[in-house]
Amino acid sequence: MIYPDLFAMQGVRLSGGQVEFSSDLPMPIASENEALIRVIRVGICNTDLEVIKGYSGFQGVLGHEFLGIVEKVKQNPRVGVGQRVVGEINLVCDDCANCSLGGFHRRNHCLKRTVLRIVKKNGCMSEFISLPIHNLYVVPEAIPDERAVFAEPLAAAFRIIEQRLIAEGDAVAVIGDGKLGLLITEVMNTQRTSKLTLFGRHSDKMDKITGNFDRVIVGDDTAAKYENMFDVCVEASGKPSGLMTAASVTKPLGTVVLKTTCAADSSSFNTAPFVVKELKIIGSRCGNFQMALNAMEDGSVDPTALITEIYPFAQALKALEHAGTRGVLKIQLKF
Amino acid sequence: MIYPDLFAMQGVRLSGGQVEFSSDLPMPIASENEALIRVIRVGICNTDLEVIKGYSGFQGVLGHEFLGIVEKVKQNPRVGVGQRVVGEINLVCDDCANCSLGGFHRRNHCLKRTVLRIVKKNGCMSEFISLPIHNLYVVPEAIPDERAVFAEPLAAAFRIIEQRLIAEGDAVAVIGDGKLGLLITEVMNTQRTSKLTLFGRHSDKMDKITGNFDRVIVGDDTAAKYENMFDVCVEASGKPSGLMTAASVTKPLGTVVLKTTCAADSSSFNTAPFVVKELKIIGSRCGNFQMALNAMEDGSVDPTALITEIYPFAQALKALEHAGTRGVLKIQLKF
Repeated sequence: MIYPDLFAMQGVRLSGGQVEFSSDLPMPIASENEALIRVIRVGICNTDLEVIKGYSGFQGVLGHEFLGIVEKVKQNPRVGVGQRVVGEINLVCDDCANCSLGGFHRRNHCLKRTVLRIVKKNGCMSEFISLPIHNLYVVPEAIPDERAVFAEPLAAAFRIIEQRLIAEGDAVAVIGDGKLGLLITEVMNTQRTSKLTLFGRHSDKMDKITGNFDRVIVGDDTAAKYENMFDVCVEASGKPSGLMTAASVTKPLGTVVLKTTCAADSSSFNTAPFVVKELKIIGSRCGNFQMALNAMEDGSVDPTALITEIYPFAQALKALEHAGTRGVLKIQLKF
Repeated sequence: MIYPDLFAMQGVRLSGGQVEFSSDLPMPIASENEALIRVIRVGICNTDLEVIKGYSGFQGVLGHEFLGIVEKVKQNPRVGVGQRVVGEINLVCDDCANCSLGGFHRRNHCLKRTVLRIVKKNGCMSEFISLPIHNLYVVPEAIPDERAVFAEPLAAAFRIIEQRLIAEGDAVAVIGDGKLGLLITEVMNTQRTSKLTLFGRHSDKMDKITGNFDRVIVGDDTAAKYENMFDVCVEASGKPSGLMTAASVTKPLGTVVLKTTCAADSSSFNTAPFVVKELKIIGSRCGNFQMALNAMEDGSVDPTALITEIYPFAQALKALEHAGTRGVLKIQLKF
C-alpha cells in the first residue's frame, strides 16, 4: 500500500443527492500497482451533471476528466514521480471473461470493473486520486495543462476511428454541437471523408471550431432535406430525437454511431426506419488516450477553443452551476 | 402490356381507413417484364394489421404473402405459364444509386422502389396480381401450398443468416414468440450455435415448434437473470420493451438484430446500455427467398405448425379479424 503524507483533503462530493465541497475527505490509499496522483486540473463533463441528477446511482467524489502529477508510485516503466499524467476511467479486474479474452477494448468491458465517478470508485474532483499504473499516460511537454485535460473526452471521440467505423471517402454527419459533438467533428476533420457536416442548433458553438466542414442549423425540415445523404452519422446530440434525425440522414445499409447516453425511459421508440433501411447502430464509449494525446501534440486537434471558463478549485460549486447553464461549453477547475 | 381476359376481380382493400371486400376491383395489367399471376393462397401478416391501423399511410389492396400460378408471361428463362410461384415484395427501378451499386440487397434498398401493400403498389389479397419476372421464384413440387406461402416471412428470418450476423459457436437469443420469432428460432436451429434460447410469454406458442433450444417465459427478473449471456440477440417481440431486454441479455460488444418494426413514437429511448456496452444494433428486413424455399424443400424448416386456421377467400374479412385476436398465429386464405 502507498500511504499519503496527509490524512484529509479537499474535494467535491455527491452525498444523499446533494453536492458539497468538503475539506475533510479521506486521502486515497494506493495499492502496490497504483500511483498516488496530485490533481492539478479537472474538466467538468455533462455526465457529471447527469450523475448529480441521479444517473448510475453514484455517491462519492465527482469528476472523471483530470490532469495530475504523480506524487508516489513504485518503480515502473510507464510513469515516474513528478510526471504529468492523464488516466483512463475504467479499472479492470484482469480476470473475468472479457479481460481474459484480451485486447484493450475487451478489458474496457471488464464485467467486474469499477469506473471513476460512475461505478464504486471516487472521481477526480479532489486534491488527490489513486489509479492503476496501467491506466496512466504521460502527457508530452508540448501540450499545455488546459489542453491536456481534454484527453478523456477526446479519446472518446477517437474511439470512433479505433472502431474502424469510417472508411475513406465516406460522407459523414455529426449531430449535436455540444462539447462531444464538436470534439467528434474535429476528429472527423482529420479523416479522409468526402463530405463532413455538423448539424447543430447554435451557430456560436459551431463557430468555435475550424476545419473543412459544413454547418447546418437543425430545423423542422432537416431530416427530410438531408435524407439518405450520409454513409455514417454520429449521434451526439444527447437527445433521443437526434436518433430519428440520424435514421433519416443516413443512407440505407449505413452506420449510425451512438454516442448519446441519455437516461430517458424506453417505453416508446420507433424502430421502423432502422429496420426498413437495415441500418447498423454502433454504440461507442471510451477510447484511446494515446490517439488523443498524439493529435493534441501534433496540433491536428486543438480543443482549447471549447473552454468557456476556468475556475479556481475553491469555486467548484459555482463552476458546476455554470456548467449546467445553457450555451456553456467546457468549464475547467484549476488547483 | 399483358392484358387479362377479365376486367374485374375480387379482393380486399383498405379505402379511407376501412377494410372492404370488393368484387369490382380492376384487374392488374402487367408490363412486358411482368407476369400476370392467379393468387391461390395468401398469408396474413402482422404488418397487414399495422397497415390497417395506418402504418405507412397505404391505401389499396392488402396482403404481401402469396402463392400463385403464372397466368400469362412472355417467354423467359425464369418462370413459365402454369408454374407455382412466390414473389419478392420490393419492386426496384434498376436505375438509382442503390440499384446501380449492384448486389441483390442494394437493389432491395432501391430509392425509388414501390413495395407490395406498403408503398404505391397493390397487395396480393385479390384474385390476380402482376409482378416483375425477376421478383418470382418457382416453388419446388415437394413443398405443399400451405407451406409455400411462408416463403416471404421465412426469407425475412433467413436474412439474418444472409447478413452473416451469426458465427459458429455463438450463443443466440430470440426475443418474441410471435410468428416471426418462431420462424427465426427455427432458422437459428439450423445453425451451429453453442446455445439457443427463445424468450416468450406464451408456452403454448413456443411449443408449436420443435428443435434443440431452451424456452424461457419472460418475467420481471428475466433481463437481470440472463444478463450478458448471449453473443447475438434477435429482437422480434414487436414491442420497444423487447429492445431493453435485448440490451441486457447481450454480451458487451455483442450484436442485437432488430426485426421489430413497431410504429411507436420516439420521444424517449434509453440509449445508455447500448453505448455503455458498445452494442451493435443491426436492422434486418426482407430476405432471400431461395434460402427459404431450399429449407422448406429439404425439411430443415417446416413452418406449417404455425398455422392457426385456413379460411376460404370469401371469408377474408372474418379471417383478418381472427388474425388480430390474441393468441393467434398464422391465418391463411385459400382461393
